[in-house]
Amino acid sequence: MAGGSIEDRLAINDLFVRYATALDEGDVATVVDCFTADAALESPVIGVIAGHEAIRAFAERFAAGRAGGTQFRHMLTNIAAEIEPGGDRARARAYLLVFITQDGKSRPLPPGRYECDLVKSGGEWRFRRRVVTHDHDYTLDGI
Amino acid sequence: MAGGSIEDRLAINDLFVRYATALDEGDVATVVDCFTADAALESPVIGVIAGHEAIRAFAERFAAGRAGGTQFRHMLTNIAAEIEPGGDRARARAYLLVFITQDGKSRPLPPGRYECDLVKSGGEWRFRRRVVTHDHDYTLDGI
Amino acid sequence: MAGGSIEDRLAINDLFVRYATALDEGDVATVVDCFTADAALESPVIGVIAGHEAIRAFAERFAAGRAGGTQFRHMLTNIAAEIEPGGDRARARAYLLVFITQDGKSRPLPPGRYECDLVKSGGEWRFRRRVVTHDHDYTLDGI
Repeated sequence: MAGGSIEDRLAINDLFVRYATALDEGDVATVVDCFTADAALESPVIGVIAGHEAIRAFAERFAAGRAGGTQFRHMLTNIAAEIEPGGDRARARAYLLVFITQDGKSRPLPPGRYECDLVKSGGEWRFRRRVVTHDHDYTLDGI
Repeated sequence: MAGGSIEDRLAINDLFVRYATALDEGDVATVVDCFTADAALESPVIGVIAGHEAIRAFAERFAAGRAGGTQFRHMLTNIAAEIEPGGDRARARAYLLVFITQDGKSRPLPPGRYECDLVKSGGEWRFRRRVVTHDHDYTLDGI
Repeated sequence: MAGGSIEDRLAINDLFVRYATALDEGDVATVVDCFTADAALESPVIGVIAGHEAIRAFAERFAAGRAGGTQFRHMLTNIAAEIEPGGDRARARAYLLVFITQDGKSRPLPPGRYECDLVKSGGEWRFRRRVVTHDHDYTLDGI
């Protein structure tokens, strides 16, 4: 990581972890709170969605899957952030390894990465843009 | 992570890494020192065990397995901690991905997570309770 | 991690991430800049190589593989560092899980670990020695 205070650098790390964990636990409100009101998400599975309403629907599909017995586990490594000189904008990246457990079996999605733009407002860092790419194509039902 | 000093937050991260690495390396004394004297461990494989003597026996089974050619690798991601206002109690969680290598082949255990209670005493953080859950059932010989 | 300032501890974490990410992205200059001029790398695949010229050639093989459609992903967990009292020498370790994606399929290399010696010079930490071990033998074409 580069630039910014140590507190900011740890806060960005924590935001990634909070987002991934909330998504996996079906905690919809926390997922939504990880994003600015105008935030955009982009992935090969969901295309591009934007705004809290669409993000809530996205998180609710994970929550419904979990309630139906499908456990996602978004494992994050190699988190790196560049905080801009003003201290309230950042770009951050992380490697992503997702496991899906269903009917007593676990399988990994292809490895991938997040590329994110972040904004600090009211003392809290949030994602304004979160793009995920995977190292090869795949399909995913229900998300 | 939330609450507590930056030093405390890094120390809790380091405790997780020290524990996992010591277990994988067969370093029994370090594993035991990661826990308070009254600590309890809980997992689907070992059930519930408590106290340094039981934890030492647990770590010795990993060390014996390693001496016999079985290498465990406990990979930790998504570490998060909540330090209580007093500064000497915390709850922490981490994602866990374990690989077992034996006879020239590696296999993963089902992904899972740690849920832990921690205590700071004499300047050192230790686990007082460490619960591991995996995303589906499995069996494990020798542990 | 132990010893050293918080800044140094985070900088060593960032060095690992910068190295792995640059290697995976084919960013040869950044890979080379992660090492001292006299640095040695050791692995079961490459044997022992030393110096910037050999390290550049090593990174160029990854870059060429990537240009040819092979995506490596070096995922790092369990990073730990011991900074020596003087503050400009350290030993650090990390767990390593590498995925290789080719022709629409991903496969993991056997899990492993890095053992590294580091030096701080001109305010920057760099690897002086980086040894990688994997938990069982494997072969790798083109690297």
